Amino acid sequence: MSEDSSNDYRGIAAIWLEAQEIKVWSKVNVKTKKGAFKGVLIPRGEQGDDKHIIIKLPSGYNIGISLDSIIEIKTTGEVQSDYSIPNLKVKKDPKKPTVVLIGTGGTVASKLDYRTGAVIPAFSLQELYNAVPELEKICNLETIQLFQKLSENIEPADWIILANEIASCLENVNPAGVVIAHGTDTLHLTAAALSFMLKNIDRPIVLVGSQRSSDRPSSDAAINLINSVHVAAKSDIAEICVCMHGTSGDTYNLVHRGTRVRKMHSSRRDAFRTVGDIPLAKIEKGKIKNTGISYHKRSLRKGNLEIDAKLDENVGLIYSYPGMKLEQIEYFLENNYSGLVIAGSGLGHINQKLIKTISRAKEKNIPVFMTTQCLWGFTGMNVYETGRMLLEAGVIPLANMLPEVALVKAMWVLGHTKEIPFVKELMQKNLAGEITEREPFDGYLILQGRVDKRIDRLIQKEK
Amino acid sequence: MSEDSSNDYRGIAAIWLEAQEIKVWSKVNVKTKKGAFKGVLIPRGEQGDDKHIIIKLPSGYNIGISLDSIIEIKTTGEVQSDYSIPNLKVKKDPKKPTVVLIGTGGTVASKLDYRTGAVIPAFSLQELYNAVPELEKICNLETIQLFQKLSENIEPADWIILANEIASCLENVNPAGVVIAHGTDTLHLTAAALSFMLKNIDRPIVLVGSQRSSDRPSSDAAINLINSVHVAAKSDIAEICVCMHGTSGDTYNLVHRGTRVRKMHSSRRDAFRTVGDIPLAKIEKGKIKNTGISYHKRSLRKGNLEIDAKLDENVGLIYSYPGMKLEQIEYFLENNYSGLVIAGSGLGHINQKLIKTISRAKEKNIPVFMTTQCLWGFTGMNVYETGRMLLEAGVIPLANMLPEVALVKAMWVLGHTKEIPFVKELMQKNLAGEITEREPFDGYLILQGRVDKRIDRLIQKEK
Repeated sequence: MSEDSSNDYRGIAAIWLEAQEIKVWSKVNVKTKKGAFKGVLIPRGEQGDDKHIIIKLPSGYNIGISLDSIIEIKTTGEVQSDYSIPNLKVKKDPKKPTVVLIGTGGTVASKLDYRTGAVIPAFSLQELYNAVPELEKICNLETIQLFQKLSENIEPADWIILANEIASCLENVNPAGVVIAHGTDTLHLTAAALSFMLKNIDRPIVLVGSQRSSDRPSSDAAINLINSVHVAAKSDIAEICVCMHGTSGDTYNLVHRGTRVRKMHSSRRDAFRTVGDIPLAKIEKGKIKNTGISYHKRSLRKGNLEIDAKLDENVGLIYSYPGMKLEQIEYFLENNYSGLVIAGSGLGHINQKLIKTISRAKEKNIPVFMTTQCLWGFTGMNVYETGRMLLEAGVIPLANMLPEVALVKAMWVLGHTKEIPFVKELMQKNLAGEITEREPFDGYLILQGRVDKRIDRLIQKEK
Repeated sequence: MSEDSSNDYRGIAAIWLEAQEIKVWSKVNVKTKKGAFKGVLIPRGEQGDDKHIIIKLPSGYNIGISLDSIIEIKTTGEVQSDYSIPNLKVKKDPKKPTVVLIGTGGTVASKLDYRTGAVIPAFSLQELYNAVPELEKICNLETIQLFQKLSENIEPADWIILANEIASCLENVNPAGVVIAHGTDTLHLTAAALSFMLKNIDRPIVLVGSQRSSDRPSSDAAINLINSVHVAAKSDIAEICVCMHGTSGDTYNLVHRGTRVRKMHSSRRDAFRTVGDIPLAKIEKGKIKNTGISYHKRSLRKGNLEIDAKLDENVGLIYSYPGMKLEQIEYFLENNYSGLVIAGSGLGHINQKLIKTISRAKEKNIPVFMTTQCLWGFTGMNVYETGRMLLEAGVIPLANMLPEVALVKAMWVLGHTKEIPFVKELMQKNLAGEITEREPFDGYLILQGRVDKRIDRLIQKEK
């Protein structure tokens, strides 16, 4: 469970390695059904399972080998304790922009995370350039390993640390842009949090992840990193954004606004989708093409970055469902939460039986916000009786803000004020693109075939 | 709030009518900016707001008139207390199939719901044929007004009543198919519940709703009803399914499997989408075209319908998020819930800090199920450390079952057994199409432009 244990093999792999009398950091020759490999047996890494071993090849690439496929394995000695990857001389090219890559953990950094020894940082520039040599051609890269967390373990407190790190690196390094490598599970929530915490950004801050581990041939890690670095180095988008695969192939990436993106698939490489709007840009072979959606421009904003990272974590989020009990909402009142976001049904409804608890929240001065669990579309609380009853009970409707974005925003707003009228005003005001005036006709369930055409059309218009 | 109050005007409309000294059931002549109308002032109905009055025209149509647009209103007398709509003689055509329409409330029945008097049912055949005359051409229709509920107020107990009603109507009326008019907010949950409760269905049971009230020109109520009745009368699909607009226009409807459909938009007419699969069929101008997705066939199934409507409502559903507290999960353990469905992040994760509570659930014999809040894609709990830890803590992964479908299924399974191994086996087994073996390439975020092509291609193949 701890980070230490992630450095070792477990389960079947551990038993198997013991039976073979092979230790981590041994040089090995492996004969498999798919060919022979020579390299160093490295620790399983944060995300390895117990059915593979990981070999670092002389090229610097790591490969996972299924135990099932191994015909023979032999050791040829152990790596010296002072072993290190040959130190790549990285020359700074003054003509190239500088990009800072901040590592927080997750699959995109998981290859880089296979430690070659305690002395070598998991996220060194050398490892990165070995793994993705294209990066050196785009920019002068600087790397910061901020933390090493699976993104399901990222917490609101981490958002604050990250926001401060970004601010200090903008001040100290003054890069063209920043890329944040992040696990994908909650990447969109971190993106939303940074969108509220960092004001007047004057360059791209790009979150990137990877849906498939770099040890798999289908990995999207390298291409996502390359495209994100392109955006950070060259794009005019001065916003918090997410840059991930646009299709399930390696054809192009999309850039999504940090407050309108959600992970909509558990495994596809194009899991991240702009919801209720059109993505900001498409990147194909290093070329960034804007879709015509308006954004804050690097060319128009200079300096004045403000970090405003106060949060009140004490906010809950519930998706309503038939059979939901009064007590499930009461829990939030009894435990003195500062606010509650409901992802209600349809236009923003819950069972009318539950409304009396909402009234009690009002009495206790706990704001209750309404979003829609449909994810697409706006709340519309004046249309039906239930909506009007909820408004009377004090519920604050949040237009087309995504439930998870509403949660993050409520934490941020309640970190600044508990005065209900002011909370309401801030929550209902568009601060960072989290509320749009209307949904474009094809902002609904955008699929690649369609996005292709739509975005290409918009690109044409833009020209 | 009660059903009684829905019979009367409230707010501004009530004050305005009082000022005009006009009572409900008065004959009125109304002069508006858009023309003059003559009819009977009927109660506002379940979903009317307080800015319109509803007039039943001599044709039987109801229209909503905005107070703002009224220039003059005059009464010409009250309707007799024994007033009734002229009884339309509906002749049964022995050549036509019979379809039973069960009303449960919601927008699709909201026009039909404007009562003409306490003696006249809100959902009479006459009203229906007046409103949608096409229905008479398709089939012999019989109507049952089961309840009159906004769907956010539909509860698990109502699913049981509905399942029994369907079963008794199949036995007594023996129709070609059944259509259930339902509010859209939780329509997909009722569809899922019926899918588990009714076994060996030998004809179509079609749920239908309407995203726009029939008093609005953009209403989808009539077309949805017509298409649903077509499916019930003629389709070979012997399953619980949902028939709603396929596009935002009135071009065609789609038929979705009851366990793989979700309301994905708060207001669009094509809000209902098959998630992670392809819809079963498309209906255009009365023609039903199957997509080639396999389904239970009317032609192969005869009789043996089984109602199995036992439920344990005591099941919770939570969507995990950063900052979620241990106590929020503990609530379910302390309040002796029978089970808990988690919509975790990504492949089925929660913050590792919360896992100890999951272990406590195991000790207390409370099954915890994992689905993905991405909605699309499968759980994959052997890929990362967190998944494996959750499995060790006893979490039961549910493949690509939708979180809300998992909730309904868990209620149903736990209504039958509390023995964990048996619960696990039933929950992980595909009983009604709720788990699919794989997701088709274009089962992700299907959009109409794309669905058009894909479905047309599949239809071609099927031929």
